[in-house]
Amino acid sequence: MSKSYRLASLSLAIVFAFSWNFGASASAGDPLPSWNDVESKQAIISFVEKVTKPGPNYVPPAERIATFDNDGTILSESPSYVQLAFVIKRVKELAPQHPQWKDKQPFKGVLEGDMKAVADSGEHGVVELVMATHSGMTADEFTSLVENWLANAKHPKTGRPYTEMVYQPMLELLAYLRANDFRTYIVSAGGLEFMRPWTEKIYGIPPEQVIGSSIKTIYEIRDGRPVLERLSEINFLNDKAGKPVAINQYIGKRPIFAAGNSDGDREMLEWTTAGEGPRFGLIVHHTDAQREAAYDRESSIGRLDKALDQAETSGWTVVDMKNDWKVIYPKREKASR
Amino acid sequence: MSKSYRLASLSLAIVFAFSWNFGASASAGDPLPSWNDVESKQAIISFVEKVTKPGPNYVPPAERIATFDNDGTILSESPSYVQLAFVIKRVKELAPQHPQWKDKQPFKGVLEGDMKAVADSGEHGVVELVMATHSGMTADEFTSLVENWLANAKHPKTGRPYTEMVYQPMLELLAYLRANDFRTYIVSAGGLEFMRPWTEKIYGIPPEQVIGSSIKTIYEIRDGRPVLERLSEINFLNDKAGKPVAINQYIGKRPIFAAGNSDGDREMLEWTTAGEGPRFGLIVHHTDAQREAAYDRESSIGRLDKALDQAETSGWTVVDMKNDWKVIYPKREKASR
Repeated sequence: MSKSYRLASLSLAIVFAFSWNFGASASAGDPLPSWNDVESKQAIISFVEKVTKPGPNYVPPAERIATFDNDGTILSESPSYVQLAFVIKRVKELAPQHPQWKDKQPFKGVLEGDMKAVADSGEHGVVELVMATHSGMTADEFTSLVENWLANAKHPKTGRPYTEMVYQPMLELLAYLRANDFRTYIVSAGGLEFMRPWTEKIYGIPPEQVIGSSIKTIYEIRDGRPVLERLSEINFLNDKAGKPVAINQYIGKRPIFAAGNSDGDREMLEWTTAGEGPRFGLIVHHTDAQREAAYDRESSIGRLDKALDQAETSGWTVVDMKNDWKVIYPKREKASR
Repeated sequence: MSKSYRLASLSLAIVFAFSWNFGASASAGDPLPSWNDVESKQAIISFVEKVTKPGPNYVPPAERIATFDNDGTILSESPSYVQLAFVIKRVKELAPQHPQWKDKQPFKGVLEGDMKAVADSGEHGVVELVMATHSGMTADEFTSLVENWLANAKHPKTGRPYTEMVYQPMLELLAYLRANDFRTYIVSAGGLEFMRPWTEKIYGIPPEQVIGSSIKTIYEIRDGRPVLERLSEINFLNDKAGKPVAINQYIGKRPIFAAGNSDGDREMLEWTTAGEGPRFGLIVHHTDAQREAAYDRESSIGRLDKALDQAETSGWTVVDMKNDWKVIYPKREKASR
């Protein structure tokens, strides 16, 4: 693993050097320079000051756990999740070996670009697509696949690398929390091993602080060397009520800060903010059709409905992207080719 | 969780203050003062110096992952695992609610002190015992049960608290590795949530660096508050070939150092030492009948057979407890009442 990670580090470092710069600068002076001086920003800063200063609300660094959803919370999920683009590419690559796919949903829909048919196949269809494209290889081979794909993949609307479609204000928030001795985790429905090759370079979050959905792997000896083989079987779906379960399983501590953007994050915020002492729940509300996308209660991707209601009753902070953020994406300081 | 953890910290801090002192002193001067000046000690120090000094074998701190088995590697498992004592206590407590247990193995064996009958029930029997005693409550309630039990439980042979039955040379090794920017993990077949309440106080290993076997939990709202309920269903058995799988699942990096004492750790050491670059595999060999216990190939607990053969062919370092360690357990600086 370490060799492929080093290769990944090199290529990703070239592509994403700009986002690092931003992450680092966030801790000097105004910790959240891309945020307008609005209620959400004030609430974040007030919370961080409260838990880090001596007093009744002080929280020791070991308990300063912050969990972030990924798609739609740190990274744009519009028009579709980054992992779906990877799935589509893989289905097209593998199609010649599976002639039956051209008559079988959801594969047919992917091959014909009929995303409605794919969506109509439901969770069962998505799981089928993931099984067909993410298994039958070793963990190291999968990591290489993701790295190679990501190095060249472009966002369909902007033409920028997917991993530049990250929210600059959220990078600043991650850096600000870490500067105050928080440990920041990703807790996403996305694939654990799909995210780990790039979260450190893009977000500063190392593999061991990434929690995601996973498929079963087994340990075996192949050609005299041990490998971890990825099976066509779901291990864990890290969504909705699965998120608090996984947080407990991986971290063994209840977060004091959680950020999400959809109903898939509702239970994570509920679990986080139901704990004793100071707690912070944050919802990123996609309100900016011009600079990114506007969607909530009716959206098929990133639906924000029950969680938006609960934000009100539970005192979660709702970030209005259009109003609260000066910029959405990092400025491109360097070309990324 | 945080409240119960704080209570735990308080009571455990009183009981185990002595082991902290030892852990801290290990980093000054000789980093492994309880080790004789033997080959195993020299090999450890030579490895740590090699990976931390600039040169071809340098390993960046982020990749300095060290995984330790628990029972028999850091904590005495003789005459039986600490968790088994907890199971026995729980079975006796719960027996009045389960009158059928007095005629049904493995419960009958536990109630009658017939450990051979329990052992004869095999893995299936052990799983049944764990299900009956570790589920049907919330994660927080289970944590409290473990804490309360541990605060009063005494080792049957020595009369000392179980958590004093820890190997002083291994505490020094953990502290030495951490002083050299290693991250130390427990990777044990023991219960994840059985270990987490006390590993930080005893070993300096926080909950998020503990990997163990687990039962399934679900998230639900009870009396208007969210809880994690423990079900009577195995989630993952973290033993043998499960250990590399869990290491990949939790950490996402291959360790460069792994320590175990039985065939249950063989695959973890194999996976660790098959990686590229400098690697270290360590086997604690129980050779000291007088100061602790002597067992290996024929033992029913902590059997060391295939892994002892493989130590030879794979260049793992075998620690001969009788010959290599000046002391087994920490000196009692304070009474622990």
